[in-house]
Amino acid sequence: MNLNISINKKKNEFDEYYKNLLSNYLSKDKLSKAMIYGSMNGGKRIRPYLVSIFSKIAHVEKKYYMRLSAAIESIHSYSLIHDDLPSMDNDDFRRGKLSTHKKFDEATAILAGDALHDLAFEILSDKKTCPKDGIRVLLIKHLSKSLGSKGLAGGQSLDLIYENNKINISKILHMYELKTAVLFSYCCYAPFILANKSDYQIRFASEYGKLFGLIFQITDDILDVEEDFKSLGKTPGKDKKQGKSTLLSIIDKNKLKKFCISEIEIFRTKYQNLLKKYSILEKLIYLNINKLN
Amino acid sequence: MNLNISINKKKNEFDEYYKNLLSNYLSKDKLSKAMIYGSMNGGKRIRPYLVSIFSKIAHVEKKYYMRLSAAIESIHSYSLIHDDLPSMDNDDFRRGKLSTHKKFDEATAILAGDALHDLAFEILSDKKTCPKDGIRVLLIKHLSKSLGSKGLAGGQSLDLIYENNKINISKILHMYELKTAVLFSYCCYAPFILANKSDYQIRFASEYGKLFGLIFQITDDILDVEEDFKSLGKTPGKDKKQGKSTLLSIIDKNKLKKFCISEIEIFRTKYQNLLKKYSILEKLIYLNINKLN
Repeated sequence: MNLNISINKKKNEFDEYYKNLLSNYLSKDKLSKAMIYGSMNGGKRIRPYLVSIFSKIAHVEKKYYMRLSAAIESIHSYSLIHDDLPSMDNDDFRRGKLSTHKKFDEATAILAGDALHDLAFEILSDKKTCPKDGIRVLLIKHLSKSLGSKGLAGGQSLDLIYENNKINISKILHMYELKTAVLFSYCCYAPFILANKSDYQIRFASEYGKLFGLIFQITDDILDVEEDFKSLGKTPGKDKKQGKSTLLSIIDKNKLKKFCISEIEIFRTKYQNLLKKYSILEKLIYLNINKLN
Repeated sequence: MNLNISINKKKNEFDEYYKNLLSNYLSKDKLSKAMIYGSMNGGKRIRPYLVSIFSKIAHVEKKYYMRLSAAIESIHSYSLIHDDLPSMDNDDFRRGKLSTHKKFDEATAILAGDALHDLAFEILSDKKTCPKDGIRVLLIKHLSKSLGSKGLAGGQSLDLIYENNKINISKILHMYELKTAVLFSYCCYAPFILANKSDYQIRFASEYGKLFGLIFQITDDILDVEEDFKSLGKTPGKDKKQGKSTLLSIIDKNKLKKFCISEIEIFRTKYQNLLKKYSILEKLIYLNINKLN
């Protein structure tokens, strides 16, 4: 099956599952409505797709990996809601719709993000996600580390600090790793933790996810410049306007594409045995770079 | 020992422990500085005090319960940082010092809160908090439930929705339970979970904490009216100015005091056997009400 068709099919399936799960966990109050608005917002669900691919490879049952995906997507939604706030990236739109603080209000958006943040841990800590206590607590440990001051929040902070500053490539790469790649990485290795895979396999999945995330971020930066509101779903050209430090601000597009392809080659050489076994992953790693013309 | 002396001694001990723990987990970057600023801010550490009392009753080792306290205080700090934001309760001061968003900036304050939120789960998920996986994951499950849309964040949301509205007593009590009492409750029963106590004992501790939290909130509302900036450490008289729905806005102070004392009496009757055994708890439940003249 064509990769995009397969992603879209999985997206529809996840959306239905996630909507149900949210209605089980939430109420009908304003906060719950804002949480649902901010998380059921037409996202591509690329993270749940990665979870499903790695879960299939590792033979993780669907009833477990769908909950893992729901936890990750709750985290992703929380981070987008907070990221769009006026004092952060100040975007009134997200995926073509009003962002949560514009649809509701700032206070509700902050709290909706906070409560989605909790929901992820509530989902993971439940036996329904995995009957083994030791595995659930390990999933939680890795997730919390990926999100805190040395993960997602740390990366968002650097992103703001680096605005309108001359920042070198290695610092930008580090910022990309924290703000984008660690959560992608988690999507790939968490199913391997669920399946009790070896440390080597987990490291492979983790590095795959980091590479996927890096290319995702670089592609996102390029699309921010090239696409219009309709295809982007949010205000285009914002990185330049806000003086964001992106790789694209110091390296031209063609060189960036070459950089991504060379990073893929390095990875392929390092893990050729596993990539031969899991051939879908070879195709999938080109997903983002192929979006560029 | 006098209760206030004992609380203050524990506060100093916790502050030193927590400062060390934070420096182990954090870096020297701006976000880490904001996290430390927002959490090492001269708080009374009444939650860690409750944890220590219930831990002593349950014979939980200090090396475990201090980490539980650190997780809870990270959550409490995150909630205060977000609560002080301009779009929330908009307070420039906290405990006599600039609030985190005034000392740093709004974006940094939002992210510092988010990262402290994660830190709590990172601390709890570590084997150092308890060697048993099943207990750590249970602590995490209860905490995440206490914080989300049906806990702390839900209560904060109701607090904002109820501003400048006529709200009845039972709705205000429900809001107090969510925004204040559930976390106090957790401080009391989490040590009992660590010690693998019976369901009955855990229910006792949970109800004790809820009652403590309710009286804490009522006292806080009264002090907001009666105290000045110096003793309060934050802007006084704000509840009225912001049209907050408090019990004090519909019931006078003396009746509220009587209500608290009658709630204590009901609790004492229900759990007289356990209160006889744990006599410190009988004294402690009057802590907040005794602050009122």
